[in-house]
Amino acid sequence: MTIAIAVVGLGKIAHDQHLPAIAASDEFTLVAGASPEGTAEGVPVFKDIDALLASGIAVDAIAMCQPPQVRYVTAAKAIRAGKHVLLEKPPGATLAEVEGLVRFAEEGGTTLFAAWHSRYAPAVEQARAWLAGQQVVSADVIWKEDVRRWHPGQQWIWQPGGLGVFDPGINGLSILTRIMPDFIHLADGEMEIPSNRAAPIAARMSLADTQGAKINAEFDWRQTGPQSWDINVTTTTGTLALSKGGSELVINGVSQPVAAHGEYPALYADFARLIRAGKSDTDRSPLRLVADAFLRSRHVATEPFID
Amino acid sequence: MTIAIAVVGLGKIAHDQHLPAIAASDEFTLVAGASPEGTAEGVPVFKDIDALLASGIAVDAIAMCQPPQVRYVTAAKAIRAGKHVLLEKPPGATLAEVEGLVRFAEEGGTTLFAAWHSRYAPAVEQARAWLAGQQVVSADVIWKEDVRRWHPGQQWIWQPGGLGVFDPGINGLSILTRIMPDFIHLADGEMEIPSNRAAPIAARMSLADTQGAKINAEFDWRQTGPQSWDINVTTTTGTLALSKGGSELVINGVSQPVAAHGEYPALYADFARLIRAGKSDTDRSPLRLVADAFLRSRHVATEPFID
Repeated sequence: MTIAIAVVGLGKIAHDQHLPAIAASDEFTLVAGASPEGTAEGVPVFKDIDALLASGIAVDAIAMCQPPQVRYVTAAKAIRAGKHVLLEKPPGATLAEVEGLVRFAEEGGTTLFAAWHSRYAPAVEQARAWLAGQQVVSADVIWKEDVRRWHPGQQWIWQPGGLGVFDPGINGLSILTRIMPDFIHLADGEMEIPSNRAAPIAARMSLADTQGAKINAEFDWRQTGPQSWDINVTTTTGTLALSKGGSELVINGVSQPVAAHGEYPALYADFARLIRAGKSDTDRSPLRLVADAFLRSRHVATEPFID
Repeated sequence: MTIAIAVVGLGKIAHDQHLPAIAASDEFTLVAGASPEGTAEGVPVFKDIDALLASGIAVDAIAMCQPPQVRYVTAAKAIRAGKHVLLEKPPGATLAEVEGLVRFAEEGGTTLFAAWHSRYAPAVEQARAWLAGQQVVSADVIWKEDVRRWHPGQQWIWQPGGLGVFDPGINGLSILTRIMPDFIHLADGEMEIPSNRAAPIAARMSLADTQGAKINAEFDWRQTGPQSWDINVTTTTGTLALSKGGSELVINGVSQPVAAHGEYPALYADFARLIRAGKSDTDRSPLRLVADAFLRSRHVATEPFID
């Protein structure tokens, strides 16, 4: 029997990724949506979670695809109504919100999935397997893209809690925290905040592991031309280059064969596995590193950003 | 047999609180210190943790009293040398640092104590007991003091990771998170940062619990005259006023008898109890709320602060 799922927040990411992945899945059946704006083909769409829950439509699971600033109250209601919940990244606008949702899901015995879609990029698990047990000497994360191209008109990304350049950057951090063989933390950082905005347009992080590896991460939203979503790692035995957001892998200079698959189909397969196993996956380490960056970095004002 | 303890970071808080509390304790014997500057009467003082650990002096436990920005590496070395570790508040400059220390202590089976001294103020446990099981309607945290009076010449408090007004403010949050009967999170916030500094001089937080209580917190470092370290709570059955940093308690308008005791003697008694029970206490919720404030708040530039 398939899992009856509803999608809340019918914006860009829902239409680009969630709805197609659900439609292609043997595990899920889309039964409803909820969103102040937006539609979903072939199912009833309610104006909010309250109307959805009151509709009488049988829903087992709900995917939360709203901007992070408005997700917590809706997710809490869904969990308390006994629904399994998937949180699009970032899983909340704050760490305490996610902590609260984790507690509610534990109390209710439902599945909570803080999903990091970039971890499902095709080459990420191969990179993790090669690095396992190795000692890292240095690593570089380069996550540079053109905000005008990827986030046209999205104002929430510039509001407090919208993360700014860390909205894409947290994808790189979600891969980094997945593949690094040792625990990492922020040692120092700097972020550039446009004088007319509340969130950073660029940031640099100096990270460290427990063995003294130097790990640098650079995020920039002003990159036109070729876009960079790369992680390069040097260990005591060789080098690894994970590029194009985790989809291509070179080890010691040799291109590795990678079985192509979509991130969101793999993510939804994992959500189904968690639900059927009665488990949760609530890793907060990427959001914790971003919160640490806001807490620990120098904040530098930079020139205004005009859409 | 007493616990042999060393103190690392022989600055203001070590001399004002830790050394006197250790001297007055039946449970601990001070055997050494380590600090780039500063002395401790009657025991050898080494320049750093490496020299202390290499000295051959038998040390069971180490209290970390340095500024938070330089605590992690030292604490990690102490834990990995098998020492029980007490962390002065805040327990780290970032959340990931504290997470790392928690992992190392779990791996080594030693005690790690993220100590929040204000939780040991005389009336805090009475306040917690009265609030237990109640529904909170509203609460106000007012934490306003004169930075020039309480932090003369301390430059680290203004650096990234030094927390600014949250250095005292986290004391109020440590009490709030201890006494509130329900889980709380940050909904919205604002912080004022002097144009010549890297940390806030004032902040406001709008917090919420899971039942809809309105919890406001105000922090200001520019308060001359009477100082304010107050938490006022209204529940569906009455009111509670916890004032003077947790040392005085009024319930429904009636002053409550409070057994006077020092915060640090009670804190060290708890550290001894944890060590003897083979347990840790690593609650990060106050630091998590502060990191959330940096992540989620509007940051507003304000006039320069001159010491």
